[in-house]
Amino acid sequence: MHASYRYHHGILGASVGPDWVSVETHLQPGKPVYIYNSASICERINLMKKAFAQLQPQIHFAMKCNAHREVLQIMKSEGLGIDVVSGGEARAALAAGFAPEKIIFSGVAKSKDELTMAVQKGLFQINVESLEELERLGQIARTQQKTIAVGMRMNPNIRVDTHPYITTGFRENKFGISEYQLAEALQKIKSYSPWLRLQGLSSHIGSQIRDISPLVESLEVLLTLSRQLLAQGYDLKTIDMGGGLGIDYYSDDESKELQLLETLGQKVNSILGDTPLKLLMEPGRWLVARSGTLWAQVEYVKFNGYKNFIILNTGMHHLLRPALYKAHHRILPMSLSAPGTQKVYDVVGPICESSDVIGQDRWFAEPQEGDWMAIMDAGAYGMTMCSDYNMHARPQEVLI
Amino acid sequence: MHASYRYHHGILGASVGPDWVSVETHLQPGKPVYIYNSASICERINLMKKAFAQLQPQIHFAMKCNAHREVLQIMKSEGLGIDVVSGGEARAALAAGFAPEKIIFSGVAKSKDELTMAVQKGLFQINVESLEELERLGQIARTQQKTIAVGMRMNPNIRVDTHPYITTGFRENKFGISEYQLAEALQKIKSYSPWLRLQGLSSHIGSQIRDISPLVESLEVLLTLSRQLLAQGYDLKTIDMGGGLGIDYYSDDESKELQLLETLGQKVNSILGDTPLKLLMEPGRWLVARSGTLWAQVEYVKFNGYKNFIILNTGMHHLLRPALYKAHHRILPMSLSAPGTQKVYDVVGPICESSDVIGQDRWFAEPQEGDWMAIMDAGAYGMTMCSDYNMHARPQEVLI
Repeated sequence: MHASYRYHHGILGASVGPDWVSVETHLQPGKPVYIYNSASICERINLMKKAFAQLQPQIHFAMKCNAHREVLQIMKSEGLGIDVVSGGEARAALAAGFAPEKIIFSGVAKSKDELTMAVQKGLFQINVESLEELERLGQIARTQQKTIAVGMRMNPNIRVDTHPYITTGFRENKFGISEYQLAEALQKIKSYSPWLRLQGLSSHIGSQIRDISPLVESLEVLLTLSRQLLAQGYDLKTIDMGGGLGIDYYSDDESKELQLLETLGQKVNSILGDTPLKLLMEPGRWLVARSGTLWAQVEYVKFNGYKNFIILNTGMHHLLRPALYKAHHRILPMSLSAPGTQKVYDVVGPICESSDVIGQDRWFAEPQEGDWMAIMDAGAYGMTMCSDYNMHARPQEVLI
Repeated sequence: MHASYRYHHGILGASVGPDWVSVETHLQPGKPVYIYNSASICERINLMKKAFAQLQPQIHFAMKCNAHREVLQIMKSEGLGIDVVSGGEARAALAAGFAPEKIIFSGVAKSKDELTMAVQKGLFQINVESLEELERLGQIARTQQKTIAVGMRMNPNIRVDTHPYITTGFRENKFGISEYQLAEALQKIKSYSPWLRLQGLSSHIGSQIRDISPLVESLEVLLTLSRQLLAQGYDLKTIDMGGGLGIDYYSDDESKELQLLETLGQKVNSILGDTPLKLLMEPGRWLVARSGTLWAQVEYVKFNGYKNFIILNTGMHHLLRPALYKAHHRILPMSLSAPGTQKVYDVVGPICESSDVIGQDRWFAEPQEGDWMAIMDAGAYGMTMCSDYNMHARPQEVLI
């Protein structure tokens, strides 16, 4: 450790939360750990509730981004529902104590077994992704003589300015159906009446979206269609705008993303203000990304004769986002050393391939073997994308 | 299934191997499965042995690409050694019955615990990646009063025409040391004499290499340096050319890659013919990629109003290569339907993001729900990179 041992301002990754000491007690040498900050998660939930207060939306946490059992408990105790994308996630949600009527089931590839389970349990809504799935679900519901609520997922053909891997509402993407397939979908639902009940339309146009206009545009498309259906006598109950709101991975200044949330809340309120439809939302990243930090130690500080490297004992097997999406995460040393000369380093992991870079061209002053470093904003799509590649141990997870 | 039910020629993914029936018995509805072909693995091993027969190299299988226990048993019974990149892999190799003197330990981030274990067990060679690691290893060996053999990994600064994620011998990469750091490394090894013993130089310049000239160039660099060291009186025993030989993922015609292997064998033989050094090789992909097929079923055939999709019950959580490297895998239907009209499809997985595409713009005739499809050449970097993302079940693994 450095002689001058001070803590980084804001290193806990959120404006509220536990004090430093309670973080440090969870750092065990040689064991990378995801530390989640419960106070920060709760704050985020409340900010979202507040921004949409007039609409009283039903918020379903997107479990795929963080399925840590204590995180799920927070969501439950804050009254949130859950959004699952597989039978495995549905079972985990039920096991965590979510009532079936708190669960939305999304995903493009629901198997017969998964849909059968969903119908048997009577989940709140199945977000159906295709005419083919509608057919399958209809047969299952009729066989079981049980009515199930359908959220028809629309693909609004909106191109979002995010990584192409996480745009999902463009016509090139596998998700949802086109507007002009809707008539056929309605016909199919009718043919399975009363076992299929159209509860509402849904959309989800992508992830890590930092300009709200496509979200607003998508909601307007959904609302126009929903109004047409209401006028035709369909008894719609919900309108599901999905998730997708992003955060600023480059800065600890959350003010802009809070502003974005508020603006979105106002816009959505002005759009939906006079509809009888219940707004459904499926946020994931926005609620938990800021509240998780991946802590790891410097294994080596290496000069290869050309470049400097900080080799951590964590990498793409623990946090795939940088390798998969070229995603940026801030990396902060736990301690600020005396204001020495800073040098530029690639921060890399232990995996035997060159994709295992966590941060490129980062500046640090005299990092030392054994130093702890914090990979910030890792609370979403971190642990859930973990692998055993190269057979290193998985990180621990702690909620404080 | 189709009326006209015929098996694809070559669908077993190798020119030799089990008959079709023994594959089919392992296909259980709803359960994607990696099927490995032992005959094909053995054939590949023998082809490699034959191509290098004059040099009698010591071949160490790179476990990171396939760690299935029965695959490891084949390697062992064929007399191969193993190349591991973590303490986890080293333990797995020992558990599989590999003697310590059959194990090479590579990797940029070896921890003190891992190196201690390596010294205690007396592994055949530690491929040391940095001056910093050399220092650490020296201290450990001296403390334990045990001599350990060092393979000094050189970074020859050779840019390979492969995906930038899998080039490892360029100066931008985290691996190895520069030529001009070698003097310092020798000094360090000397300072820890007799506990550190320089056994040889090593390099590994990347993966999926399809032009042998950089491999040859790299070996020539190693040999020149090795000769200088021999002339200076260093008692070198080995020269380690790593792995990296690629396959043609676009075709089932293996003739070119066999030709490449033979040419490489001849070249290496003519380069090394008169040295007393034992050649070490660490192939992975070349030995097993062709011998593994990921079998999965069509969950849905979907038209989204704009494009056609085949949605499989496998995806990036089971086989990350297409998403991570934009890697190509041939996808074959198990059965050839009657020669109907072919249409173009994106073959995608169940994961809730747009990166989960296994193959783009592939032509198929009338695929049906439930059809089995074979994702070819998936025996390397398939199961070892598996994750639980979205909480789907992992694939099974079978060796036949």
